[in-house]
Amino acid sequence: MEIKVIENVMAYNKLEADSNREFLKHNNTVMINILSAPGAGKTSLIIETIKQLRGNFKIGVIEGDIASTHDAEKIKNLIEDVVQINTGGTCHLNASMLAEAIRQLNAGSLDLLFVENVGNLICPVGFDLGETRRILLSSVSEGDDKPVKYPKAFIKTDMVVLNKTDMLPYSEFDMGFFSDSVKKLNPDAQIIKLSCRTGEGISEWIHWLNDVMKSGKKPDLKF
Amino acid sequence: MEIKVIENVMAYNKLEADSNREFLKHNNTVMINILSAPGAGKTSLIIETIKQLRGNFKIGVIEGDIASTHDAEKIKNLIEDVVQINTGGTCHLNASMLAEAIRQLNAGSLDLLFVENVGNLICPVGFDLGETRRILLSSVSEGDDKPVKYPKAFIKTDMVVLNKTDMLPYSEFDMGFFSDSVKKLNPDAQIIKLSCRTGEGISEWIHWLNDVMKSGKKPDLKF
Repeated sequence: MEIKVIENVMAYNKLEADSNREFLKHNNTVMINILSAPGAGKTSLIIETIKQLRGNFKIGVIEGDIASTHDAEKIKNLIEDVVQINTGGTCHLNASMLAEAIRQLNAGSLDLLFVENVGNLICPVGFDLGETRRILLSSVSEGDDKPVKYPKAFIKTDMVVLNKTDMLPYSEFDMGFFSDSVKKLNPDAQIIKLSCRTGEGISEWIHWLNDVMKSGKKPDLKF
Repeated sequence: MEIKVIENVMAYNKLEADSNREFLKHNNTVMINILSAPGAGKTSLIIETIKQLRGNFKIGVIEGDIASTHDAEKIKNLIEDVVQINTGGTCHLNASMLAEAIRQLNAGSLDLLFVENVGNLICPVGFDLGETRRILLSSVSEGDDKPVKYPKAFIKTDMVVLNKTDMLPYSEFDMGFFSDSVKKLNPDAQIIKLSCRTGEGISEWIHWLNDVMKSGKKPDLKF
């Protein structure tokens, strides 16, 4: 009797991610997977973006958390298409969870789908969800050493957003050190500096998103 | 032929943790395991504490990171007894890693041993290291919703330290909501509010540490 062995859980995740990606591409839905440490401002960035773009695009959000519907409730005040994934302790989203959320959201009808991953700079990095683009969100209040200390998160991203620039006057954050560290790890990654509170840099972020939307939604993916 | 099965990796971790705890207790070494999200200020808290206590106690530090010796180098400017554990991608420290670090540090000669865990509010929670006390460090700039969103981290701790209180004037942090959320999850956990930058609350933290040191170093452990 043959014993079947799942050699690589990640290989299965990749298959599921490719399936998600194919479905979204077929329906011209752009999916943005946002990774960050806890409290960097993923929800705030999504809320500001929805306010800017909901007149032009049909937007949905998948909220990933180990527990609670705290963030999903905030988003639900703005748009209808929100699904909460509670992982029940698991430290990252995977492509199978996304497949179910995409189904529940009827995501093929959306122009733009944000995924707020579980707040964690380590475990979500290895899990392709089938996203069109991946964003690494860092924040001034976390300090300028995050690229040095969590290098894979900054390597495996299409772009870096640095939030909470309004905190710069009250911190010892060294922008040169941060930018140089990111460039060493990921020379192609653009860095957008913004503050969801003051609105600084939001227009640059919206411009970047618009470019992704316009680019035929068929980017060169890293996965 | 019998096939041996490791039924529970966590059971092995518990054995190793108990061994670490027994060794430390035998040598009257108090070990404090500090958990937090990336950038909450674990290193800053350890540095401030060393400055306050190094005249009275022999202090050592075990630095846990997925990569780099960034934090260990800062500590090494203050004290000799520092060991860096680079997990190489693993999202938490475990008791076996600690056993090796304790050996390398000759930790039985220390009065006080700080463990700076990998910056992560999820995965380190389940891993007993053999610590005398566990601290959950949160920070004002991460927002007041961390207990709601990462409940296990706040349940499985002996005490909560809220850092960066100097940021309160520049944030919408609701102290009542934060404190109530912590109390619901962990009614016995003291909350110490402090700022490593201004020094506010540091004396209360030192007082707490002194009590742990004086209490015969045989606390009622939760593990």
